[in-house]
Amino acid sequence: MPAGKVSVIGIGPGLTDHMTAKASEALEESDVVIGYRLYVEQVRNLLGRQEIIASSMGKEVERCRLAVDKAGEGKKVALVSGGDPGIYGMSGLLLQLAGEKAPDLDVEIIPGVTAAGAAAALLGAPLMHDFAVISLSDLLTPWELIEKRLEAAAGADFVIVLYNPRSRGRSDLLSRAREIILKHRQGSTPVGIVRGAGRDNQKKWETTLQGLTALIEVVDMASLVIIGNSQTYWDGSKMITPRGYQV
Amino acid sequence: MPAGKVSVIGIGPGLTDHMTAKASEALEESDVVIGYRLYVEQVRNLLGRQEIIASSMGKEVERCRLAVDKAGEGKKVALVSGGDPGIYGMSGLLLQLAGEKAPDLDVEIIPGVTAAGAAAALLGAPLMHDFAVISLSDLLTPWELIEKRLEAAAGADFVIVLYNPRSRGRSDLLSRAREIILKHRQGSTPVGIVRGAGRDNQKKWETTLQGLTALIEVVDMASLVIIGNSQTYWDGSKMITPRGYQV
Repeated sequence: MPAGKVSVIGIGPGLTDHMTAKASEALEESDVVIGYRLYVEQVRNLLGRQEIIASSMGKEVERCRLAVDKAGEGKKVALVSGGDPGIYGMSGLLLQLAGEKAPDLDVEIIPGVTAAGAAAALLGAPLMHDFAVISLSDLLTPWELIEKRLEAAAGADFVIVLYNPRSRGRSDLLSRAREIILKHRQGSTPVGIVRGAGRDNQKKWETTLQGLTALIEVVDMASLVIIGNSQTYWDGSKMITPRGYQV
Repeated sequence: MPAGKVSVIGIGPGLTDHMTAKASEALEESDVVIGYRLYVEQVRNLLGRQEIIASSMGKEVERCRLAVDKAGEGKKVALVSGGDPGIYGMSGLLLQLAGEKAPDLDVEIIPGVTAAGAAAALLGAPLMHDFAVISLSDLLTPWELIEKRLEAAAGADFVIVLYNPRSRGRSDLLSRAREIILKHRQGSTPVGIVRGAGRDNQKKWETTLQGLTALIEVVDMASLVIIGNSQTYWDGSKMITPRGYQV
């Protein structure tokens, strides 16, 4: 039996033109493609003879188990992950499961363009200085810890990138995060919202911490919210965090 | 005269197989390629008829001015930036200068795979939970602010990614950062060091906060240091930050 392998592939934020050559190649060489339905659709035009296993959100553990099992049968498995698989993606879970069930399994992790990087590019240059990345999802993390991190990041003047700013049935997370950040930062602090970064239907909004309240409803689960530091400014439609160069 | 344009292109962390299709295409379509010498070399096999302007480190302002000027002459300019141009890269400076000198200039920012993403993929899955990205370079940022951010990130149990862990003539920055983090975190906390992530000569070291002292000398300007949170562990050679799934 040939040795199987799992490639955890970062397919980038949306359209396949943001995929790397290495990611495309690993997909093309795979025998089986496993992923969340939306991500499998995203790369379908690159697939041919592969067995395709698409499942719904929330089935992360099952997908990783299946990837390990298929690789155990000698298959080359492509486990696709949106953005970068190492940032709130599938890398960790796959490595945890592989470590338990198949410690000798060949696993390769192929990085991709992150949602944060794509959103930042669309907004201008908000991440030019130190930043903190925080998921507001309290499904796997106690809200108290999320609050503690928001406090710390706001207090030390980090640019803040919020992933999962809205959960199913939880529309108040972002409002609560905003309140915490406002304790440390001006209402005029620039805030950029990007929905569907890198996708055909990508959309962005330019606002401030003060103005964010009026836009809470446009934020969905696939949005990113970037909050500037004390130096960030809007230059027209460009959100810029200066790094300190004399220009 | 045709309208000029500047594409700020993230060429990824090293070998061109980590470049996106969009980045390659923008490079190929350009008239002029401007960049730091090392990055221009990195993509030279993709270039043909383009005018190539490579300069040394520290010439960031000049490169951006030149890009704006060349675009003003109607040229399609590719301003290349390592990793992602929006993360300690060229996007901000270019937008600042364009805003001052050529507010109507067409600027496109093309995101790339970050050094942090490439280093994380090589180490395993250290960035699966909230993380803070901090540059230790005190050339453009007061050391007091860097210390404040290290304190805040360590105290709120962020995974910490250190960029520029060593400056020319400053070998003590990383030791000082380590001392600050050790006030909040165990000596056994996993630490991964990656030098030249994504390059042919990439190299990694697996250690802990305690063990880092013995490895300070392997860290150079092009290295990244990733410090785990309180839940991060080494599973053999894999650095894993669990996200809270029941596996």
